[in-house]
Formats: sequence, structure tokens, C-alpha cells
Amino acid sequence: MSAGFEPSGVITLLTDFGLRDPFVGILHGVLLREAPRAQRIDLTHAIPAQAVSVAAFYLQHAFHWFPPGSVHLCVVDPGVGSARAAIAVLSRGHVFVAPDNGLLSGVLTASSEVRRVETERLGLTPASRTFHGRDVFAPVAAWLASGQRRFDELGEPHQPQVLQLNEPKRRENGAVGQVRAVDHFGNLITDLPGAWLSDVQVHASLGEQRLRSVGTYAEALPGECVALRSSFETWEIAQRDGSAAAALGAGVGSVVELHAAGAQAL
Amino acid sequence: MSAGFEPSGVITLLTDFGLRDPFVGILHGVLLREAPRAQRIDLTHAIPAQAVSVAAFYLQHAFHWFPPGSVHLCVVDPGVGSARAAIAVLSRGHVFVAPDNGLLSGVLTASSEVRRVETERLGLTPASRTFHGRDVFAPVAAWLASGQRRFDELGEPHQPQVLQLNEPKRRENGAVGQVRAVDHFGNLITDLPGAWLSDVQVHASLGEQRLRSVGTYAEALPGECVALRSSFETWEIAQRDGSAAAALGAGVGSVVELHAAGAQAL
Amino acid sequence: MSAGFEPSGVITLLTDFGLRDPFVGILHGVLLREAPRAQRIDLTHAIPAQAVSVAAFYLQHAFHWFPPGSVHLCVVDPGVGSARAAIAVLSRGHVFVAPDNGLLSGVLTASSEVRRVETERLGLTPASRTFHGRDVFAPVAAWLASGQRRFDELGEPHQPQVLQLNEPKRRENGAVGQVRAVDHFGNLITDLPGAWLSDVQVHASLGEQRLRSVGTYAEALPGECVALRSSFETWEIAQRDGSAAAALGAGVGSVVELHAAGAQAL
Repeated sequence: MSAGFEPSGVITLLTDFGLRDPFVGILHGVLLREAPRAQRIDLTHAIPAQAVSVAAFYLQHAFHWFPPGSVHLCVVDPGVGSARAAIAVLSRGHVFVAPDNGLLSGVLTASSEVRRVETERLGLTPASRTFHGRDVFAPVAAWLASGQRRFDELGEPHQPQVLQLNEPKRRENGAVGQVRAVDHFGNLITDLPGAWLSDVQVHASLGEQRLRSVGTYAEALPGECVALRSSFETWEIAQRDGSAAAALGAGVGSVVELHAAGAQAL
Repeated sequence: MSAGFEPSGVITLLTDFGLRDPFVGILHGVLLREAPRAQRIDLTHAIPAQAVSVAAFYLQHAFHWFPPGSVHLCVVDPGVGSARAAIAVLSRGHVFVAPDNGLLSGVLTASSEVRRVETERLGLTPASRTFHGRDVFAPVAAWLASGQRRFDELGEPHQPQVLQLNEPKRRENGAVGQVRAVDHFGNLITDLPGAWLSDVQVHASLGEQRLRSVGTYAEALPGECVALRSSFETWEIAQRDGSAAAALGAGVGSVVELHAAGAQAL
Repeated sequence: MSAGFEPSGVITLLTDFGLRDPFVGILHGVLLREAPRAQRIDLTHAIPAQAVSVAAFYLQHAFHWFPPGSVHLCVVDPGVGSARAAIAVLSRGHVFVAPDNGLLSGVLTASSEVRRVETERLGLTPASRTFHGRDVFAPVAAWLASGQRRFDELGEPHQPQVLQLNEPKRRENGAVGQVRAVDHFGNLITDLPGAWLSDVQVHASLGEQRLRSVGTYAEALPGECVALRSSFETWEIAQRDGSAAAALGAGVGSVVELHAAGAQAL
């Protein structure tokens, strides 16, 4: 029930704007103007340009570290200025404001509520056709965080776009999934749930490479690539003292297989 | 009238310091020490090293997204430690604190007030000859934002340096200007006002390239370079799903011409 | 005396996490959850991956720009998940929370107090073996900053790891030291105290290169590499309008010699 949304006064920001230009600073300026008392926290602004699926993955795994009642402003928006809708989603006590392009796929549940942001109804007249982060999404996020607008005032219920991803699959003695993000250290973060193969000895394979699993980075040999459970509670492939992405020539979309120890290599 | 400056308690920061070192963090520490209640917002710290004109352009187009009464701390300072003055400018209800090297050219108007920051009068004894951001500009910005010092206490009126730029020019059936900044996406941001050619069909040319204009990124074909109005209300050259700077081999200073549709190509 | 630690409500963050991923944002989320009223300031998140000695150097030269009572959350942690301890250090009125790997070497004094962070005693059950910044260090920092925990409640006194570095040495008519960090501009920051050779004309040599000293960047000729006193009050090697690191092929660990003018070149 949207009646249940109690703003905590926290706004997080996740974009692909980078920090080279004043765009992120301007977003903060708009948030400050509309919600002077909100706490504003940058989740990241370095999503690869227009990489909606990477943004969706990181958002899914990061939002719950913020208090219920937080508003998450998410702008990776290749379709800015086109007919794509702006939406807000109420899910698990948090509100997410974003373009309707699948970015919120990872936070949708069966009980989520989705509204189309009706800019005319809200008195929003975008000053630009290229920066709706500033002209639409930031004001709406600020109004929700400050309580100036209620979630169900934003517009009509809406059926959101959902990313069509290959979901990770269990199979006999193992599982197959894919790399969803490459982090700052070159670690390959997969969508394979850590819990699927938690109690067994696991090997991973990525293309022709076969990798053992370890509990911590420190257990790997210098230069060795290994599989271990990431801080997102999924499996990741990491290289000790190096970049697994570079060492293995892998990246977003690379297929990773897990094999329970003793199982035949694929 | 400087008597009219009512601090809003907001301080923005714009520098070429990058985020690799603790320099920006130290600036925040000094601001926090001198103005514990101020809201501090990073506009950007990734101005290309010593690129005063890029900083001037971004500042001109960003400051008005902050409330009147804001103080803008701007440090791109190739002459640090030399005889160049430190100045403060009061313009359109905002105060700007910067080295006197043209950085504030874009925010000066006929009614702006300019003061030289007289460090001795203010009791400032810079601890270094290389980091006046920390030792001079940050304390002054904090004092103004917190009301500990009034604008007209900073020092005597001063005639500021102004950048000598080729201003964009209208001409028959078009206009000519230049690229003033390249953003995170590789978009080429020009100084050509969007309003000059808003009601006509426009073509742009950049060197040998001739480009059509569109309303939004989404209207361009994949890989196509186009002209459109930027979020700064000037014209920009963008590539759909790519970097126009890379595709066109262009950058800051590149000349861009606009031609009203039907006009002869130049 | 730890009884003397009065939290100022300020928390700084220094890590090698980069800003590409949501890891830093998540740290802020945990700090916000545990210490909602604290002021959180990013010192830097761009320490080169696992470069404990660079982090130690920057921390040593940056922390005192924050008010006494500040808590400094420092995470460069190649041994995460291994048996390395988590520690807190109380030194000169500040508290530092970090892995016990030498990162705090630069802030230790003879009167510092050091405690092992005993996670079980504190009710901390790390959710991951790869992200103790989030699961251990951030909660502890927040508790100290908010006064929920006292320093001496964290655990037993502990003998910390200390980095074994070649300390800079004075010698007849000069001194020898090394580059400890390379900043955003490519300046080579050494450990040679500025005060050692403050009153004499100095030359520097770095490998085969012999460089004169200047008071400010502006005194160097275009393209010239020179020695001057850095904002950290140590000597640095800088190139006017360029990167000394690139021009001289030097970096962390490069040896720098200073020679008083008139002294024979080494």
C-alpha cells in the first residue's frame, strides 16, 4: 500500500553521468532546492554509458543498505526526450524514480506498485529534452522524500518495462549464469546466487578456464583467478592482485559455470 | 548592493583537483571547520588541468541551479603562489570566490561587484604557496557562507581579469561559434545559444562534416552525429550511442557553424 | 587517555574502492543507518588498488585538517577475510579504524592507544568475507562517531603492524628520500620534509635528472621540471603545465636527492 510509504528523508543517486561535468552537481542543486533537509547520497555515477542492465543489477543489490522510506533517483536514460515514460516504483518500503526502460527490473516484486509520472499533472515543464534527470526525475524524487507529494499523486498505475535477461540456472551438480558487472578491481560479478552452492566444494569455468573456489581473496595464490562469494551474495571471479576481467578477457555477458567438486568438467 | 547578500548556507565546489588525492577532502575539512552548518556540494572536480575557460563555461551554466545566497568556491589556478590576486564577485545574488584569472568571466554582469581578497587584512597566512584552495579560497568561502564575514569586508574593489574569447556570432541564415567543453559522453558543447535558431530547421557543420539537427538523442540513427540543443540551452554535437568528440576528431576550440535549412552550405 | 575522546560527529572515508561501483555509496548507507547525524566526508576513494603505503602517507598528511574528535574510516585491505585483525587507533584526539596492515603507520605516536576490534564482543557478524568495510569498519566508525560505543569498549589493547619504509635521511649538504605518492597532476610527492632545507638554495636530482628548486609552479619555465615545497610540507617534483611522473618516468618509490646549492652533485 502506498499509504505505507513514510519518507525517511534519504535520497540516493545512481546515474551514468560521470563526474567530469557539473551534471551531478546540478542534480544535487535541484534536490537541495526542493528538499533542503534531505540527506543526499551518491550511490554511483559511473554506470557505463547507457548500460541499463548494469544499473539494474547494482541497484537491486545496493538499495537495501539504506533505510526504509528512502527515495532512489536512478537515471540511465538512452531514450531521454522520446516517448518513454517516467515511472516511480514503490517496493519493499522504498521508492524508485527512473525512466521506464527496465532499470527497475531488479527491485520489482509481485507486490510492487508502479505509477507513471505525469509531468503535466505535476506542473513539470522540462526545460530541456536532454536532461530529464534535472528537469523531471530530481524534482519528483525530492517531492517524495520531503513529503510534498504522495506516491499515488504522481499519476496512473503503469505496467513497467522489464529487462529480458537470461536468468541463472541450476543444473545437475552445478549452475550456469553470467557476468552482470565488472567492478573497480576488475572482479567479474555474476548473477549466480551464493547460496546455491554454499556447502560444497565448487569449481568454476569461464570459457576454457577452470578456476577453483576460495573463501577469501587472501586464499588465492598471487596472480591466480578464483571464484568466491561476492559482497552482493552472488559468485564472483577475482584475480589476486590483479584484474580478472583483463586476465581472462571477460566482461559483462560472459558465461560462468559452477561445478560441484567431483562433478565432471563440462 | 553587497548589503543584499544573504547567505543561504550553501557552498559549491568546482576545481581541477581530481578525486585521486585527498585534496578535495581537505577542502571539505576546512569548509567544515569554518562553516560547520553549511551544505557543501561538489559541482565538479574534473575540470581538465588548468583549463580556466572550461571552468568558466561550466560555472556560468551551472550556478543558477543553486539558491540565491550560495557561495561558489572555484579553484583552477595555474598561477597559484604568483602575484595573481584572489577575488570575490557578487553577481545575481550569488558570491563567487576564485583566483583572478578569468574563471569568473561568465558570471560577471554590468552590475556585479568585485573585491580583491586581502589576505593580510583577513588574518590569512597561507601555509603553502601551492594550495591556496585550502589556505585562502576555502576559508573565505566558508566565512561568507556562514556570515562571519561580509562581502565588502574582504578588501578593496577590483577590476577583474576577463577571458578574451571569440564570442559566437549570428550571420545571414546561420551562426558560427565554438566548442567550449566536451562532456562525459563525448558530446561537444558549444557556445551557440539555443534560442538563436530555435524555430527553423538547422544544419550544422564542423570542419568537413555536415550534420542534421534533431530534438532528442533518440531521433538520431545509430552511430549518427547530430546537432541538438543541450541542457545548457546552447547547441551541442552528439553521436547516438557514441562519442562525437572521438567520431569527429573535435574538441574544445573546434568551430561549429549552424545553417538555417535551405541556406547554402558554407 | 581514551576517556579524552569526545566525538565531533565527523567521519572521513579513505579507501581504494574507486567510484565505479556502489561500494562507497553502500558504506555511506551503513554510516547513515548507524550514525544518522554524523557529517560524512570523502577523503579519497582512489588510492591505487591495495597500495597501503600510499594510503598511509595521504592519511598522515590529511587527517589534521578535520576537527579533533573526528573518526577516520580507512579501508585498503588486501587481506580481507584472512586472519588480519581490525584495529582502532586513538591518536592526537582523532580515532582511526582500519585493517591492521600498516595503513595507520603514519598517525601512530608514542602516546597512541591501539585496540583490536573484537567483532564477536561487539555483536558484529560479517555478512561477507570480501567487504569488511561495510560489515565491520563502517559500523564501528559510526558507533564511535555517534558515541554509541567508547573506544575502550572495542576490544583489548593491541600491538599494530607498522610499515617498514626507508625513512628520508639528512646528509652533508643535502638529503635523500623517496616518492610516496603521485597526485592527479602527475606531481611526485616525496617524504622529504620541507623544513629540512628551507633556508638554502636547493637542487634536486632524480636519477640522471638535475632540477632546480622554485617557490611556486609559476616560477618554472613552460615544460620545466622543478622541485618545490608541496602543500603537505614535504618536497615535491612538478612539471609546469605537465606531468612530472610522465616526463621523468618516475613514480612511487623513485629516489629523490636534495643538494644545497654549491654542494657537489652526487
